[in-house]
Amino acid sequence: MDQMSPILPALTDEELDPRAAAVFADIRQTRRTDFVNNFWRVLANDPANLERTWAELKEVMAADTSLDPLVKELIYVAVSTVNNCTYCVRSHTAAARAKGATDEQLAELHAVVAAANKTNRLAIGLQVPVDEAFL
Amino acid sequence: MDQMSPILPALTDEELDPRAAAVFADIRQTRRTDFVNNFWRVLANDPANLERTWAELKEVMAADTSLDPLVKELIYVAVSTVNNCTYCVRSHTAAARAKGATDEQLAELHAVVAAANKTNRLAIGLQVPVDEAFL
Amino acid sequence: MDQMSPILPALTDEELDPRAAAVFADIRQTRRTDFVNNFWRVLANDPANLERTWAELKEVMAADTSLDPLVKELIYVAVSTVNNCTYCVRSHTAAARAKGATDEQLAELHAVVAAANKTNRLAIGLQVPVDEAFL
Amino acid sequence: MDQMSPILPALTDEELDPRAAAVFADIRQTRRTDFVNNFWRVLANDPANLERTWAELKEVMAADTSLDPLVKELIYVAVSTVNNCTYCVRSHTAAARAKGATDEQLAELHAVVAAANKTNRLAIGLQVPVDEAFL
Amino acid sequence: MDQMSPILPALTDEELDPRAAAVFADIRQTRRTDFVNNFWRVLANDPANLERTWAELKEVMAADTSLDPLVKELIYVAVSTVNNCTYCVRSHTAAARAKGATDEQLAELHAVVAAANKTNRLAIGLQVPVDEAFL
Amino acid sequence: MDQMSPILPALTDEELDPRAAAVFADIRQTRRTDFVNNFWRVLANDPANLERTWAELKEVMAADTSLDPLVKELIYVAVSTVNNCTYCVRSHTAAARAKGATDEQLAELHAVVAAANKTNRLAIGLQVPVDEAFL
Repeated sequence: MDQMSPILPALTDEELDPRAAAVFADIRQTRRTDFVNNFWRVLANDPANLERTWAELKEVMAADTSLDPLVKELIYVAVSTVNNCTYCVRSHTAAARAKGATDEQLAELHAVVAAANKTNRLAIGLQVPVDEAFL
Repeated sequence: MDQMSPILPALTDEELDPRAAAVFADIRQTRRTDFVNNFWRVLANDPANLERTWAELKEVMAADTSLDPLVKELIYVAVSTVNNCTYCVRSHTAAARAKGATDEQLAELHAVVAAANKTNRLAIGLQVPVDEAFL
Repeated sequence: MDQMSPILPALTDEELDPRAAAVFADIRQTRRTDFVNNFWRVLANDPANLERTWAELKEVMAADTSLDPLVKELIYVAVSTVNNCTYCVRSHTAAARAKGATDEQLAELHAVVAAANKTNRLAIGLQVPVDEAFL
Repeated sequence: MDQMSPILPALTDEELDPRAAAVFADIRQTRRTDFVNNFWRVLANDPANLERTWAELKEVMAADTSLDPLVKELIYVAVSTVNNCTYCVRSHTAAARAKGATDEQLAELHAVVAAANKTNRLAIGLQVPVDEAFL
Repeated sequence: MDQMSPILPALTDEELDPRAAAVFADIRQTRRTDFVNNFWRVLANDPANLERTWAELKEVMAADTSLDPLVKELIYVAVSTVNNCTYCVRSHTAAARAKGATDEQLAELHAVVAAANKTNRLAIGLQVPVDEAFL
Repeated sequence: MDQMSPILPALTDEELDPRAAAVFADIRQTRRTDFVNNFWRVLANDPANLERTWAELKEVMAADTSLDPLVKELIYVAVSTVNNCTYCVRSHTAAARAKGATDEQLAELHAVVAAANKTNRLAIGLQVPVDEAFL
């Protein structure tokens, strides 16, 4: 795959400023891997945004909450599909698989997303009024 | 709430043609309630689409599959939020609650949707290339 | 229907500047009606945009082109549905009906829009590669 | 074109389960061609979804309905453009051409889609209230 | 305006937990007003998300950065328009006006948003390849 | 970068009809460069649309208006990001840089876009009612 370069460069570890380097260290420790993907390397050009975004994802996607981590990854894939973000569909599908998602579950996820997109447009296009029961 | 009328009328039970009436009977039996919401009543103007769409939702949202029914409702709410379908956000949030979703889970769902929308736009706007590891 | 007021006011005929008044006169003559809808009355706050937008619609939606005027209205409704523009769904559905669209055609239009939205998301979510035959 | 691989594999004819094989046979007979494009080959990993989606498209895009088959393909291209689905824009543009769409008609289609997207955003951004006449 | 109630209640000051109350105090001090709008009152049901989101907005929309605060509000309105968020279009248009935006600037903003939406769809629908000069 | 070909060909200068050639001459004079990018070369297949679109961009993006030209380019990039138009993100980021945008400003732009997308979805998903103060 020969891809286009990003708007701001994907920084190597050597090019990080100290704030970005600290975030990368936390990414590596939290995920227990040395691999840091391009999303963070490009975002590292803006250390304040890198800090905020990593802190948010770490907290939102954490394991000890009311929704299961795999469920949250599937929701992430669903949103990324509707927003048509290739990078995000691929990275979060990989994350979902790493958390145990099977091919059957991924296929079912996309069947739900497809049905929802279909009925969303019917409700909007036909201008269906909200039932009293849903207010 | 004073809402606008739909593009095609929300049919009463008396106005249904036989194919639509048969679908309504199945909706009532499957959901174990006499209530049939406006989405189906408007779609009943096109009995073929009503049949197809109900059959699809019945199959896709069924209980005996690889994803939990509540998880599927949460995914439905997530997609409806990104598509900005008020009718669908409200009807599927009601369905999620009926399947046991707590306020805490709904709040967490929207935190995940919000984070995903944020990182989707960063990946797109900064044109982050897909890592080899995700191909 | 009690609706919110627009961001810029819907101008009355008396409030129009000469450039906007000239556009309104052309709208009335072209459409053979005295009625000028709110879209143009709000846009009249920016006469240059009003001129450009009316000239574009008049040319694009004209009767003597390779696509039938009713077909173009149906395409307009389809796009407005995907963009979730209530104003546009309602105004262009009214325009389609004025050009002869039947309830059956409108129902079929939305069945096509629904199917397209469904398969769009499947193609994106499953990342289907484009066939050589389509290149 | 060197493209990324899909999330689930594009199945060859030899890899299909019997339900998927039956759908492929119907696709070939209905379209009168041996060619089955990648969309169906990837969807074949979920035979139930493949069956539902093919049955829907076959019925919705059929020739003997109130909208012309070419008109329906153009609507499909319009929706796919707004949803930014490259696969769908290309496959349904090819289908539209196979049904007789000229370059002039395709250019005009995109002029309508462009104008609709423009006025959709103006109506939303300026928060234009729906006229009584459109209710 | 008679509006629907939110999914989670808009909390009064008396209903806030201590973390939410601390955020509200900071909102009031930062904005130099006692008014706290519904967005924060609904988000207050999830104090962690309230904290994160307020901290992010406070930092991103701050006055002492490379982009002018009014420019950032205009960008916010543009994004909210494309996402079709009525709440956000109205609240950030109000914020832009509070920061000095004139009716002329708001009209011009929407002319740019409209033109961008139009050319975005042309580039996508016609599948224009990226020029070497832009890589 | 090996890209797919467009739906209609990118015309060379030799292939232009006289109306398209006149537009290209004006593009070159206005921008003070011989380079005409692919967007215009593909649009040149529809001279009327080429004329309208160039005239609109020339007027909307002009230097002598109430919004700064760089601000307008940043708004263009923001809209293109939300619409996920790769061509437009790249061409208008290049235009923004040509008008003086720094990497810091581009990073800040995307931080605002990201925050807006996040809060847009929270307002929609939680169905926050518009405050009286914003009406």
